[in-house]
Amino acid sequence: MDERSALGLLAGRIDAAGDDAAVIDGLVITTDMLHERTDFPEGTTRYTAGWRTVGASLSDVAAMGGAATAAVAAYGAPAFDPTEIEAFVDGASDVCELVDAAYVGGDLDSHDEFTVAGAVVGRTDDPVFRHGAEPGDAVYVTGTLGRTGAAIREFERGNADRGNELFRFEPRVAAGRRLAGVASAMMDSSDGLARSLHQLAAASDCGFDVEWDRLPVDRAVDAVADGEAERRELSTFFGEDFELVFTGPRAVVEANRESLDTPITRIGRVTKGGVLADGDPLPDRGYSH
Amino acid sequence: MDERSALGLLAGRIDAAGDDAAVIDGLVITTDMLHERTDFPEGTTRYTAGWRTVGASLSDVAAMGGAATAAVAAYGAPAFDPTEIEAFVDGASDVCELVDAAYVGGDLDSHDEFTVAGAVVGRTDDPVFRHGAEPGDAVYVTGTLGRTGAAIREFERGNADRGNELFRFEPRVAAGRRLAGVASAMMDSSDGLARSLHQLAAASDCGFDVEWDRLPVDRAVDAVADGEAERRELSTFFGEDFELVFTGPRAVVEANRESLDTPITRIGRVTKGGVLADGDPLPDRGYSH
Repeated sequence: MDERSALGLLAGRIDAAGDDAAVIDGLVITTDMLHERTDFPEGTTRYTAGWRTVGASLSDVAAMGGAATAAVAAYGAPAFDPTEIEAFVDGASDVCELVDAAYVGGDLDSHDEFTVAGAVVGRTDDPVFRHGAEPGDAVYVTGTLGRTGAAIREFERGNADRGNELFRFEPRVAAGRRLAGVASAMMDSSDGLARSLHQLAAASDCGFDVEWDRLPVDRAVDAVADGEAERRELSTFFGEDFELVFTGPRAVVEANRESLDTPITRIGRVTKGGVLADGDPLPDRGYSH
Repeated sequence: MDERSALGLLAGRIDAAGDDAAVIDGLVITTDMLHERTDFPEGTTRYTAGWRTVGASLSDVAAMGGAATAAVAAYGAPAFDPTEIEAFVDGASDVCELVDAAYVGGDLDSHDEFTVAGAVVGRTDDPVFRHGAEPGDAVYVTGTLGRTGAAIREFERGNADRGNELFRFEPRVAAGRRLAGVASAMMDSSDGLARSLHQLAAASDCGFDVEWDRLPVDRAVDAVADGEAERRELSTFFGEDFELVFTGPRAVVEANRESLDTPITRIGRVTKGGVLADGDPLPDRGYSH
């Protein structure tokens, strides 16, 4: 059974599952597990790992339109090196500070493989879900696409400093909060833009038509991609970029553009069915963790 | 560097760390990582694993005197077997139901070793910390000691059903809530009674004198222990029992005994310094995760 089917199983059994985070009693709560083999290429610093672990959960809260309150992390490693733990805590604390949340501690566990799990609690009175997109809405993304794919290439080439820099992303909590009441549907792009669109389409019972030329591909992708095919692969399918993908009436979103304090790009429109790019089917594939 | 020193490092760097859970803005938040090699002996069912993973974090909330609101869990395994995932979710949901909390979902991760991390958020306006115990207070524990140590022996002997039964504990959330305003200091016994007393002593700058004959050793220990030395080992040093260890003025605690709806046992008293059992030093050793 693959991860998506299993997540579907979880979603079917738990009322609150199936969105980026659970919402209960005005609280938003989410967790993400990351580990060395699949999430932290050679050269990833513990500082970056702390940032990314907690950042992934902060991004989930952002995707619900919530404010982030506090984060914890469980840290499993073969040895408890004080310098590494301090660096991890520094990274986790710094990404929290960026979004007005507090990193408040965690758990340590002796583990053969470096494995970490972040959890974040936030608040919202007005959550945005994956369902709610309407044909006629426009579809947008925050920031740029492909930073993580480009980072992986930089790590592969031994450019660890650049890889770490690209790996540290700004969770879109401030933008997410401002989009509550504006966006009709929202999620983060952690599984890649293509898969995110398919997931929004399934949850909202709609389709999408996006334009390749409109996608805000990060310059870091151009620095590593060998041709247009790889450029699309890294920006659209690779995932783990933690940008927000959201829909809404174009006029309403545009009226709020300035107040978001975060660059957003209109990449296409919501349709009645089918996920297309320039009129051709956009495959439903992306990152599996 | 061992786990305790590393946790001390974390505690020194993070204001909210050093207690069983962090308290911020009236929220209690905590996380625990468990994995096959150290936490789930052969024979442990996924149902029990789900129960125990979330239960460990619920116990942390209980130890702060908080009410538990919601739990999530990250589930890492080599394969996503639907029956196993359902069983895990059932166990996590059932332990939540027992303490009026909701299990609201989680994350799935492909991992070589079965590894899980639970996180729980709760609420408190009146947290109980590890500091606050005063010489002259009495020291109490809830429930019985040694269930987990006995469970390990049962698993070793191939009695998996009995092991699983003993492994599923009731988090003391209801008692913890009622002890807020009553107990002067509190923590859970996850590292074993002996180490818990040393940790309370360090946080409260006090000592303890407990009486061996007063310890509420679980009958399951007598069923597996070969003599008094092993009986003490399993009940006092083994840990992972998730009972509450707390202090308070004896008259005040006794006046509230009935309302706790949970058996408690007075095991000794708070002194000015030194952790003793029947007048002899009680070693500061216990479970390391």
